[in-house]
Amino acid sequence: MSNKNLPQLANVPGVRIGTASAGIKKVGRVDLLLIETAVNSTCASVYTRNAFCAAPVIVAREHQSRQSSRYLLVNSGNANAGTGKQGLAAANACCQAVAEVVGCHPDEVLPFSTGVIGEPLPVDRIVKALPTVYEGLTESGWAAAAQAIMTTDTRPKGASRQFVSNDVTITVTGIAKGSGMICPNMATMLCYIATDMPVTQLVLQDCLDHAVKGSFNRITVDGDTSTNDACVLLASGQAKHAVVDQSDSEAGRLLYQAVYDVCVDLAQAIIRDGEGATKFITIDVTGGLTDDECLRVAYTVAHSPLVKTAFFASDPNWGRILAAVGRSGLDKLDVGSVQIYLDEVCIVADGERAHDYTEAAGAEVMRRTDITIRIELGRGDSSWRVWTSDLSYDYVRINAEYRT
Amino acid sequence: MSNKNLPQLANVPGVRIGTASAGIKKVGRVDLLLIETAVNSTCASVYTRNAFCAAPVIVAREHQSRQSSRYLLVNSGNANAGTGKQGLAAANACCQAVAEVVGCHPDEVLPFSTGVIGEPLPVDRIVKALPTVYEGLTESGWAAAAQAIMTTDTRPKGASRQFVSNDVTITVTGIAKGSGMICPNMATMLCYIATDMPVTQLVLQDCLDHAVKGSFNRITVDGDTSTNDACVLLASGQAKHAVVDQSDSEAGRLLYQAVYDVCVDLAQAIIRDGEGATKFITIDVTGGLTDDECLRVAYTVAHSPLVKTAFFASDPNWGRILAAVGRSGLDKLDVGSVQIYLDEVCIVADGERAHDYTEAAGAEVMRRTDITIRIELGRGDSSWRVWTSDLSYDYVRINAEYRT
Repeated sequence: MSNKNLPQLANVPGVRIGTASAGIKKVGRVDLLLIETAVNSTCASVYTRNAFCAAPVIVAREHQSRQSSRYLLVNSGNANAGTGKQGLAAANACCQAVAEVVGCHPDEVLPFSTGVIGEPLPVDRIVKALPTVYEGLTESGWAAAAQAIMTTDTRPKGASRQFVSNDVTITVTGIAKGSGMICPNMATMLCYIATDMPVTQLVLQDCLDHAVKGSFNRITVDGDTSTNDACVLLASGQAKHAVVDQSDSEAGRLLYQAVYDVCVDLAQAIIRDGEGATKFITIDVTGGLTDDECLRVAYTVAHSPLVKTAFFASDPNWGRILAAVGRSGLDKLDVGSVQIYLDEVCIVADGERAHDYTEAAGAEVMRRTDITIRIELGRGDSSWRVWTSDLSYDYVRINAEYRT
Repeated sequence: MSNKNLPQLANVPGVRIGTASAGIKKVGRVDLLLIETAVNSTCASVYTRNAFCAAPVIVAREHQSRQSSRYLLVNSGNANAGTGKQGLAAANACCQAVAEVVGCHPDEVLPFSTGVIGEPLPVDRIVKALPTVYEGLTESGWAAAAQAIMTTDTRPKGASRQFVSNDVTITVTGIAKGSGMICPNMATMLCYIATDMPVTQLVLQDCLDHAVKGSFNRITVDGDTSTNDACVLLASGQAKHAVVDQSDSEAGRLLYQAVYDVCVDLAQAIIRDGEGATKFITIDVTGGLTDDECLRVAYTVAHSPLVKTAFFASDPNWGRILAAVGRSGLDKLDVGSVQIYLDEVCIVADGERAHDYTEAAGAEVMRRTDITIRIELGRGDSSWRVWTSDLSYDYVRINAEYRT
């Protein structure tokens, strides 16, 4: 197991992790993960808005509505999506099996799956591997967990933050998977974050919503998610700290910031591991009338295959950026007020090619691997930022060969 | 010049065509086209809705509002877009030069450009080539015209229809260019159609609007067009036929059908020549509550890079189609009512994999080069159809290397 690029992930007291190779898609691949959190933990979550949400998402939502969660079971290699009633039965059977092995109620188990859509989940193989997973539960399993949930990811993704509140050191650690990044909304993204801070469920959910808005929602449009997307935040409550029950307390602010930072790290890691990605592109739209129109411009540019291939080719084909801004459908856009920058180089001023722009200056920026496109709309005070990657030969190769 | 795949294009009495090599981007390439239509012709047009519309589009709109059009000047190799005031001056200078050569008012000339965005238009080279173009004007120039307007196109595109009305044979002939087909809305599309039928301007515009809606708007979302898109329909009035001044007359119906058929042929030819395209995919969405929601589902599927790469790989990864339908944002979509077919094979029934679906049956369909995805939403009577292509290595290669 290579943990290349994976930072040190601090243990979260009260949270234990086990992994195993169940042989779901490939023999020998670690593809099963169990996360256990202490009794009386709280749990917050954000799920896909795809109308075809996968069976595990339906079951996880139900279980969470009935009972506090103690175990998260995650498999890679099979998404258990588009599998109808059999899929629901399979997800429930997995929860039942976990409950029997660990000695809890099935409603305390949340199932998650990622991988190929529409294939029956091999429940038997998962059930058979559960005792191994359970026996191996350890607080130091985060790096292994990051590996276990990978599909087309080339690198495991994790992030950790620690802070001191009332003389107590608090940890926030998270892992994520996802890499289908030409249109980020199509990649299945799974994310599991835990903290030992005691937090009320209400504040924990608000904390996660806030963090997701500034991180994963900068790489995926609201409502445009895959069938299986899920992001879960556990609070084990094992730190010797008073319960955080207000977002604007000192402890609340520190916690929000740490969870936010972990989510931003993970979201950026997903983009950097975009399928076939060779560039990390930040798109900053400023001067819009509303957040919504900034977002629309940012995503029109971010989703443009012509812009993305130009970045892959390191070609300062700024005309493609300009064309994307122009067709993003803004009402009464005065193109004469638009400025566009590639990093520090102004490429479009007053709606046309900047007079002092040179192809050489553009080419110099385009050779970089981290590039910011700044689009100033010149009509208001709103701004929005999204992150994306380029479009390479390898994107096509990876997605053409995914199932073969 | 290869005219591979170009059907026989019938001359249109009263319409003459000249081409030349002006050396705009590459020496020796035929890159300049002049279309002349008889005195008292009528002219209808549809232009890009991109806020950054190119200089020639601005000039063409102005000229059309002031004077009936006699000459269309088209260059490939340079889009004259993102070029500001200099661009407008360049487009006007070209019209002025045509007026001097042919002896008409500059307002009677409409300019069109396609090619790289943001480079100054080499007006001198165009002006220098104009006498050659003018001297070569001929009614039999349609095939050469189809060649002259190509950019990344690999094949010239043309279509012709003839019909008899009141014992008079009427011709409709058109040519088009465009091939940036992963998201059709980003390709510059130019289309020039002519008929010898005498038609009032009002009816001619309605005829073109109707045809565009059922053809080019099936491959490009309204408002999401490139900086230079244009579609022009000329009526020379040279046929010895009464003027068509009503769309629902017998002659009107015949004319509408012929123009419609020519547009569909050209739109489909654009998709078949999609950059790197190896498959022609028809997406039929039926059973929607409104046209708009059918369109939204159709385009979400058509624009999905994951769906497109699966088609390139001939992989019946129907889960990607299902996921795209699910995230297209339909209000209260009951996934249990959704059926999806690949040609005659039902892949999704009642919201899950069809019980009698086999991977072998799916794979058999996916090996075809023309495939229809039919998505039955099961909630209304509206339907919509769009055409698209797959996403291949070559798409990335063509667009990464376009300027180099």
